[in-house]
Amino acid sequence: MPSLLCSMRIVKFTINMTPLQDLILPAPSSRILKTLILQGYIFPSLKDLVKSKDKNKPLFISMVGTQGKRLFSKGEILKISKGQMASSSISFPFYEKSIDEIKEDTYDTPFGKIVITVDRIDLLDLSSIKTEKYLEKNIKIKFLTPPLLTSKVLLPPSLKEKYKSVRSGYSILPSIGLISSYAYKTYLSALGKNENPELDTRQFKIGVLTNALSEVFGFSLEPITIIIGRDDKGNLRKTRGPMGWIEFDIKSKKLKKRIIKYLLVSSFLGLGKSRGIGLGEIEIS
Amino acid sequence: MPSLLCSMRIVKFTINMTPLQDLILPAPSSRILKTLILQGYIFPSLKDLVKSKDKNKPLFISMVGTQGKRLFSKGEILKISKGQMASSSISFPFYEKSIDEIKEDTYDTPFGKIVITVDRIDLLDLSSIKTEKYLEKNIKIKFLTPPLLTSKVLLPPSLKEKYKSVRSGYSILPSIGLISSYAYKTYLSALGKNENPELDTRQFKIGVLTNALSEVFGFSLEPITIIIGRDDKGNLRKTRGPMGWIEFDIKSKKLKKRIIKYLLVSSFLGLGKSRGIGLGEIEIS
Repeated sequence: MPSLLCSMRIVKFTINMTPLQDLILPAPSSRILKTLILQGYIFPSLKDLVKSKDKNKPLFISMVGTQGKRLFSKGEILKISKGQMASSSISFPFYEKSIDEIKEDTYDTPFGKIVITVDRIDLLDLSSIKTEKYLEKNIKIKFLTPPLLTSKVLLPPSLKEKYKSVRSGYSILPSIGLISSYAYKTYLSALGKNENPELDTRQFKIGVLTNALSEVFGFSLEPITIIIGRDDKGNLRKTRGPMGWIEFDIKSKKLKKRIIKYLLVSSFLGLGKSRGIGLGEIEIS
Repeated sequence: MPSLLCSMRIVKFTINMTPLQDLILPAPSSRILKTLILQGYIFPSLKDLVKSKDKNKPLFISMVGTQGKRLFSKGEILKISKGQMASSSISFPFYEKSIDEIKEDTYDTPFGKIVITVDRIDLLDLSSIKTEKYLEKNIKIKFLTPPLLTSKVLLPPSLKEKYKSVRSGYSILPSIGLISSYAYKTYLSALGKNENPELDTRQFKIGVLTNALSEVFGFSLEPITIIIGRDDKGNLRKTRGPMGWIEFDIKSKKLKKRIIKYLLVSSFLGLGKSRGIGLGEIEIS
């Protein structure tokens, strides 16, 4: 079953980009990599996945970063200077051909000419995720871009109908349970599993259990509002989420192991909504 | 049933204290008011309640405050100067005689001579708590002293036995559900209700539901470690909790009304563990 084996690995390509002229970044800046795919320049096999409206698709395209920081606009115009090297990453279920589908070259994009090189390739085998090195210490999660997490995923499934009209917005003060619940959701997306009542219940239970059995040791969180494009009428589309980090532990070894696994998958595929445009990029240490 | 009627009201006495000499504050500084009661100078009827080891007793004795801030030590020695007016508050189930049990006078305490005057008396009638003015806007909770909240109260009661050995510590990043769950616990203490499986389940459900249906709009939180006395061997006893504020809304009107009620009771009786020595003092606006 080669196709099943393939879908059991997630790959992350970290790609360097150097513009041949000053480049004004689009909002979100992940649009550069997305456009390169839609133009057919790189990873043509991913076109359908990029276009897919599936809410939990196994695809993460990061914002553009320089010097270890992701670039996203809070209203200001962002630029990369001519010759300045920036980078961006993309993660998806591994397929053999993918390695041949990105050629180091200069590409003509709507944003200007950009030289593309591959910086590194990371592979995560879902069937043997190594959690050992994280088990004996606290878990630290760092948000490189704000995640969009709605606290409503922690609603008991039996009450979903009763509160279906409630909009609880995106959490700017996420609990460990909420983060874990969404990490499980990302894990499901990696496995290609769609939502169903049984998985919804499991996602709810993970959130509740992790909230009850976790302890936070330190954090630095700040809500930020960022621009993620324009609507059909040309109005700016904004969204709001937390930036910063949380250091915590989970006091049940079995549960901790599971959550680490989900978080490691999320360090490839992101956390929360709009992962496909680079929101919810996290680092685990 | 006059005794039932009495217990349906919570009273808060705000008491001014002016030392006749420089006064070194004990840790916790709530010990001044506590000592005045144990010495029989004020509220002699409360002696038994003050001594009681009941974990959820309806008693709150605040830390000493000056200029709107509570004084608690992070290691340093705290003083009030001779003639400087400080204040402290105490909340408990109202009884008629209480008003006569505090006389404005100069009292000789182990900490020095202190002039005591009553600044104000607030009464909260549990059978008719006014929530209207809070319902139409966001709720802002401010921690005047750090609350001690263990996330384990959000564990499903059916799993309590399974995870009974787990110590999840005090949360320094409290969720709205955790705060609400503890506010309900304070409300139960005001009603004189002891814990039982049914109330445990209700407390759990309130936490889960509020976590799912709440939205945080702003916050400023910082964990602090404070000294709360010495153990039998003379070692400093420390504890850690969050200071700051959270502004949030609850997206179900019925639930919001209940939580506001519990929080208003908690603004008299405190939130979390060690309310009796002034931890978990909150303001709601």
